[in-house]
Amino acid sequence: MTGRNRRPIPPGGVGLVVSAGKRIEGLKMTDARKYSIALVQMHMGADPEENFAAAMRHVREAAQMGAKIVCLPELFRTQYFCQREDLRLFDLAEPIPGPSTEKLSALARDLRVAIVASLFERRAPGLYHNTAVTLNAEGQIAGIYRKMHIPDDPLYYEKYYFTPGDLGFQAVDTAVGRVGTLVCWDQWYPEGARLTALKGAEVLFYPTAIGWHPAEKDEFGEAQYDAWRTIQRAHAIANGVYVAAVNRVGMEHGDILGNRAPGQGIEFWGGSFLADPFGRIVAKAGHDGEEILLGEIDVALIEETRRNWPFLRDRRVDAYAPISQRFLDTTDTPTPSKERK
Amino acid sequence: MTGRNRRPIPPGGVGLVVSAGKRIEGLKMTDARKYSIALVQMHMGADPEENFAAAMRHVREAAQMGAKIVCLPELFRTQYFCQREDLRLFDLAEPIPGPSTEKLSALARDLRVAIVASLFERRAPGLYHNTAVTLNAEGQIAGIYRKMHIPDDPLYYEKYYFTPGDLGFQAVDTAVGRVGTLVCWDQWYPEGARLTALKGAEVLFYPTAIGWHPAEKDEFGEAQYDAWRTIQRAHAIANGVYVAAVNRVGMEHGDILGNRAPGQGIEFWGGSFLADPFGRIVAKAGHDGEEILLGEIDVALIEETRRNWPFLRDRRVDAYAPISQRFLDTTDTPTPSKERK
Repeated sequence: MTGRNRRPIPPGGVGLVVSAGKRIEGLKMTDARKYSIALVQMHMGADPEENFAAAMRHVREAAQMGAKIVCLPELFRTQYFCQREDLRLFDLAEPIPGPSTEKLSALARDLRVAIVASLFERRAPGLYHNTAVTLNAEGQIAGIYRKMHIPDDPLYYEKYYFTPGDLGFQAVDTAVGRVGTLVCWDQWYPEGARLTALKGAEVLFYPTAIGWHPAEKDEFGEAQYDAWRTIQRAHAIANGVYVAAVNRVGMEHGDILGNRAPGQGIEFWGGSFLADPFGRIVAKAGHDGEEILLGEIDVALIEETRRNWPFLRDRRVDAYAPISQRFLDTTDTPTPSKERK
Repeated sequence: MTGRNRRPIPPGGVGLVVSAGKRIEGLKMTDARKYSIALVQMHMGADPEENFAAAMRHVREAAQMGAKIVCLPELFRTQYFCQREDLRLFDLAEPIPGPSTEKLSALARDLRVAIVASLFERRAPGLYHNTAVTLNAEGQIAGIYRKMHIPDDPLYYEKYYFTPGDLGFQAVDTAVGRVGTLVCWDQWYPEGARLTALKGAEVLFYPTAIGWHPAEKDEFGEAQYDAWRTIQRAHAIANGVYVAAVNRVGMEHGDILGNRAPGQGIEFWGGSFLADPFGRIVAKAGHDGEEILLGEIDVALIEETRRNWPFLRDRRVDAYAPISQRFLDTTDTPTPSKERK
């Protein structure tokens, strides 16, 4: 049934006609590409230029390790500044293309690697986005993605800073493979993962800034990290794709050159990981320090997994349209169930 | 911020303004209902009438334990017969309403419990469905759901037996709460969970028949069970609802009164569980035996979780329409990303 007989679960349960554990040779995989990606889990300090220089060094190290695509964490140029609402912090934003993409572009071209970089985009006066840029190995902007789902919560005042994205969900081609980028809060939405996978992405990158509040880490910390990991592993399973979550690490008070947010700060929990198309964690960083996590994308495993778990075959595309509604209130929803009532 | 300060993860990360561990009294929850549900994990033998009688007994036991809604496994009247394609097995099907719903209806009325029962429905000559019936505590059919996603795989020849459902995704009111039912293979589709939750379900029931192939259990068994549990826990997290997976247990050869399927059979893995709206497993059955798993639905926890993880607030309903397409091939898909290319 499968190339390597890494047979996950069959439809509705488990069945196997071939013997397990036996590799089936001679099965024609249409695509046998493999490539390495790197997830840069890093700590950010108070000086944006120093963070940027550190990120450039990490990308260089990752390339030396063999990575062909390197993903940086969300808004890696600065500490997570959204812990408060401060007009002055819009000064951190920059156009795309702009100073950061120019330097990263030169680096990408120099190293012959693709880079996924999350930036605070200034699109027009008063119009800002939380944007991920994918630079290809020629140093060109292969695609930009503007964070679609914007959170807002005490200490996470993102709706103040970022206009929700208007480019939809995307996948872009790099020299080694087709990948999609989503950003942080997007990771809680199965729709975003599905749409990006349907665009042909082999890997979903999630540059992220997520952590523990010091006062609740003991009680809720483990469950919080577990929920975060679980829903992203589920995106891998549902879509038969790799999922790469790339988080920052360390305690922050949103310090931008001495402009700090009040409060106890946030302990960004690291724990970056790569899940394979079966949802298995194949690489995982720790919770305490900087780390360059290297993982291999085996494109044949995507096809193999999807042959064995043919979820894409059986989607009920005729029945999903109501997903575009906010809520299916029983009083005003003309849906198939109504026919019976 | 929250009723009991069981604060999961806030948008984009973790932030808390109130002290953790301190219950916030006086917060008005709109709905403080609590009710018990029972998940009947059972073994099936060769005699359908014996299985049915056993199921009736289990429902009675569950009601005595305090359950107000009792869910039986997928196609609990028989062993899992879809291990082969056999014309004679369509004789197992019955109309709805029909003999089984009549008996279950009387039982529900007698015990004052709702019952979720998965049946092989004969809708018309040559037209059959894999259908879940929800009977309310008055013994009425509160709703029927016809399995929307139908698998087909060696030993799981469901497309031979079951026409895909045409009633869409639904939630129905019972005396204690509003619940939704999906069936087995549906559990791999985030769309089904989302649409059922958007219809107001507090609990998603998944009557299931899933297990290990004996030859691959050692190598893949743990990962298979983990993937199954992970994707369903993710439905709980994404939607802020309870998820109840109700599986059969034990080795089967699809034996229907001596008509057995060839092959090594399937070891149905049990492991039924209830996950709370944060995706935490709050009740779990073993993998080896029959079990009536009792769990409490705390409706306030749904609201509390959704206030803290306001995913429903931020859904990009303007951007999800392409989910109704089979695949978003780059050559023929007019999507926002095209605008930039």
